[in-house]
Amino acid sequence: MKKVLIISADDFEDTELLVPYYRFKEEGAHIDVASMRKGAIRGRHGYEIEANKALSEINPDDYDMLFLPGGKAPEAVRKDMDAVNISHSFFGKNKPVAAICHGPQILVTAGLLKGRRATSYKSVAPELKLAGAIYEDKEVVVDGNLVTSRQPSDLPVFLKETIKKLKEPR
Amino acid sequence: MKKVLIISADDFEDTELLVPYYRFKEEGAHIDVASMRKGAIRGRHGYEIEANKALSEINPDDYDMLFLPGGKAPEAVRKDMDAVNISHSFFGKNKPVAAICHGPQILVTAGLLKGRRATSYKSVAPELKLAGAIYEDKEVVVDGNLVTSRQPSDLPVFLKETIKKLKEPR
Repeated sequence: MKKVLIISADDFEDTELLVPYYRFKEEGAHIDVASMRKGAIRGRHGYEIEANKALSEINPDDYDMLFLPGGKAPEAVRKDMDAVNISHSFFGKNKPVAAICHGPQILVTAGLLKGRRATSYKSVAPELKLAGAIYEDKEVVVDGNLVTSRQPSDLPVFLKETIKKLKEPR
Repeated sequence: MKKVLIISADDFEDTELLVPYYRFKEEGAHIDVASMRKGAIRGRHGYEIEANKALSEINPDDYDMLFLPGGKAPEAVRKDMDAVNISHSFFGKNKPVAAICHGPQILVTAGLLKGRRATSYKSVAPELKLAGAIYEDKEVVVDGNLVTSRQPSDLPVFLKETIKKLKEPR
């Protein structure tokens, strides 16, 4: 069974967390949701989901894929050194990382986008470029282990590419 | 390309409409959203989606599958004779119909559940039984052309079965 780690916090964009969450479950994956503290986190539209893990207790080696949803959550998550270190571990082992909307901000802080093709919500584009990313205004950008998209309307193609990565034998 | 008809209205349960909507798009389906009137409809959590068709202009023969999401919308939709007639057409031609949560209320009004195995949100169960359905408290019930589920947490298995139906050659 594939294991997916979702990192988020309060004020996540509800569809960007929940649509992939249900999609990974449909695929039979085990999912852990990690945040700065264990407990319920609440989306901008009022949906709640349990963060069943604290970032401090995550061992990235336990997971096959990292998923970073958007909303305002990444602005808080990027300040957490555990989140940054976890991202480094996935990139270091070339394991799939999927991020949408503001999610790539965490990878900017981690310094992982230099020379990488990527996209994000349009207001985040200047940050990505400053971080050395090759920014592409496309519904989905796949560059090696990294899958990025811009916004909720990109979810269908984002998930198509993300599920492909999840299914790759490792 | 498969064509899916979603029938809903204001106060839909956002995830129950949007998660399948994005999932059908991932599958490459064309989707029309129909309501009593054309125009934006708004979910209980504030998400909006465009009803690009009025129920009165729908020809059910144009579609491969009917999907009825939940929330408070079905209580309004069931009073619309076009919605009832459209449901009859899908059942009459044995085409797939998927309904979740309060969605099956429309099929109750249409008198289509007599002797059929089905599920729904728990508060709707008495109605289904009165309508002659064989109610099963399971995350998904598949009976011929009909796929039903209870609530948002059932979405992964609901969609697994619904996508199977959508992919069946006709």
